[in-house]
Amino acid sequence: MSQYCFGIDVGGTSIKCGFFSASGELLEKWEIPTRTEDKGEKILPDIAKSIQEKMQEKGLGKDAVLGVGIGVPGPVNKNGEIPTAVNLNWGYKHISKEMEELTGLSSKAGNDANVAALGEAWKGGAEGCANVILATLGTGVGGGIIVDGKIVAGAHGAGGEIGHANVKHDETDSCNCGNKGCLEQMASATGIVRLAKKALVSSDKDSALRKAEVTAKEVFDAYKAGDELAAEVVAEFADYLGGALATFATVVDPDVILIGGGVSKAGEPLIKAVQKCYKKYAFTTCKDIPIRLAELGNDAGIYGAAKLVC
Amino acid sequence: MSQYCFGIDVGGTSIKCGFFSASGELLEKWEIPTRTEDKGEKILPDIAKSIQEKMQEKGLGKDAVLGVGIGVPGPVNKNGEIPTAVNLNWGYKHISKEMEELTGLSSKAGNDANVAALGEAWKGGAEGCANVILATLGTGVGGGIIVDGKIVAGAHGAGGEIGHANVKHDETDSCNCGNKGCLEQMASATGIVRLAKKALVSSDKDSALRKAEVTAKEVFDAYKAGDELAAEVVAEFADYLGGALATFATVVDPDVILIGGGVSKAGEPLIKAVQKCYKKYAFTTCKDIPIRLAELGNDAGIYGAAKLVC
Repeated sequence: MSQYCFGIDVGGTSIKCGFFSASGELLEKWEIPTRTEDKGEKILPDIAKSIQEKMQEKGLGKDAVLGVGIGVPGPVNKNGEIPTAVNLNWGYKHISKEMEELTGLSSKAGNDANVAALGEAWKGGAEGCANVILATLGTGVGGGIIVDGKIVAGAHGAGGEIGHANVKHDETDSCNCGNKGCLEQMASATGIVRLAKKALVSSDKDSALRKAEVTAKEVFDAYKAGDELAAEVVAEFADYLGGALATFATVVDPDVILIGGGVSKAGEPLIKAVQKCYKKYAFTTCKDIPIRLAELGNDAGIYGAAKLVC
Repeated sequence: MSQYCFGIDVGGTSIKCGFFSASGELLEKWEIPTRTEDKGEKILPDIAKSIQEKMQEKGLGKDAVLGVGIGVPGPVNKNGEIPTAVNLNWGYKHISKEMEELTGLSSKAGNDANVAALGEAWKGGAEGCANVILATLGTGVGGGIIVDGKIVAGAHGAGGEIGHANVKHDETDSCNCGNKGCLEQMASATGIVRLAKKALVSSDKDSALRKAEVTAKEVFDAYKAGDELAAEVVAEFADYLGGALATFATVVDPDVILIGGGVSKAGEPLIKAVQKCYKKYAFTTCKDIPIRLAELGNDAGIYGAAKLVC
């Protein structure tokens, strides 16, 4: 008789909550603040309370709820455990077990980027696809890998950490992770700005980007407006990202590759540039794998979290 | 009451057959020729006949056999179908279905390199590991990816085709696949010879490798003997392979990475060189993933094929 589930996406400042039908219809969504004080010990109880209130409001008993799925920023393993989650002030935590104890409902947990990929595979840009690569281009580059309909969590919860694939062995700038030459340094919003700054220094071409502060959005806007220097920056970005996606595809051979995150708001021109480079580097059998925009935006996490228990 | 299974590894010239206990003990192995004439239509019937003879010899009924697993050189999807297998002269074939019809036994099929990875995860260098990357360095570079104990076949049967990951965007020589800059051009036996030839031309250092024909084995032998030029070649090989493995690890985050194939006979010095470069490029969480030699050699395929049905 269970007909509903909850999908929770825990962020560093707020927690997105979704109330879903078992077939994946988002019936209601809301947010609560993330209280990171006291080593983040209030976070899961806050979520449990919010869920219980929603169930009471809807007049639902436990038998009407399939469970609570949770996405968390950190390396969650397939048992729902996490060694540490810096943004939440968490040390080791058995997330799903604790949530089950708090709510009396079944619970599963996953890494937020991985869970977002599962959401896109369920109801988003990869709907109906069993094998998906999602690259999320935001402040950093995240990712999620779906194989046979399931998240690739990895042996240490680091499955899908594609932002830290090395794409330039001789890079001299450092990534936040400490390595040099990560995809994140080329394809995140900050990475694209970094490429633009370098191009502005090494070229004396006139460009709309010659101004005090440049954003990734401005790079793509200038590119769409025909700016030559912006075109060079986008080509460099696309070469790194397309090449990396082609490499990831030799590992998992997905049905579709999705690009999401703030940078992906640049839309089809971005996809076109990346697809061109992808095709150049992709293995024969994988050349025609479509590259598409992710569709669920900030809701991908709650969709995917719900899917964990549906 | 089923206590046995068969693992079959189909190659272009011979077919390796293994008779296993259900717990993975190789009880007997033998080979039959691969008859590729008549579009390879004799291959599966030959295998079926050989299995039936073995069952008769052992006095086994169908209820004592769990099934027949088959590894094949080509892009087998997870249903056991293949669009084409060039080395066997096959066009489209539903391998497992045809084998079930021929033998009356349950059957599953997979790509040979993927199946070898499954074998290593079952009884070889990655015994007991649920998540494995196997790189097979032979004439070419093959690979197999195991996630949660299962083969990653991919959407088009191209999962684990890591030999065709692009590791050098500005390469000018062509790979057999038509692309330029594939891992196979750097890390296969022929790839290593290619790197050695280039090094011999661009350097005027004295070296044991300055002779008419050089093999990959000779490169590693010279490296072990302290040859400076060979050390440069091995360092280049290790940089490409270690970097690529670090990238693959960001996708699947395995428990262990295995290196097999003829080139891996160079042993621990090869592993050590690759591990050093891997650590340099790997994501923090993945830096300590062990890199080990595969252990089953030419038997990996029959072990993995047997595991498909055990």
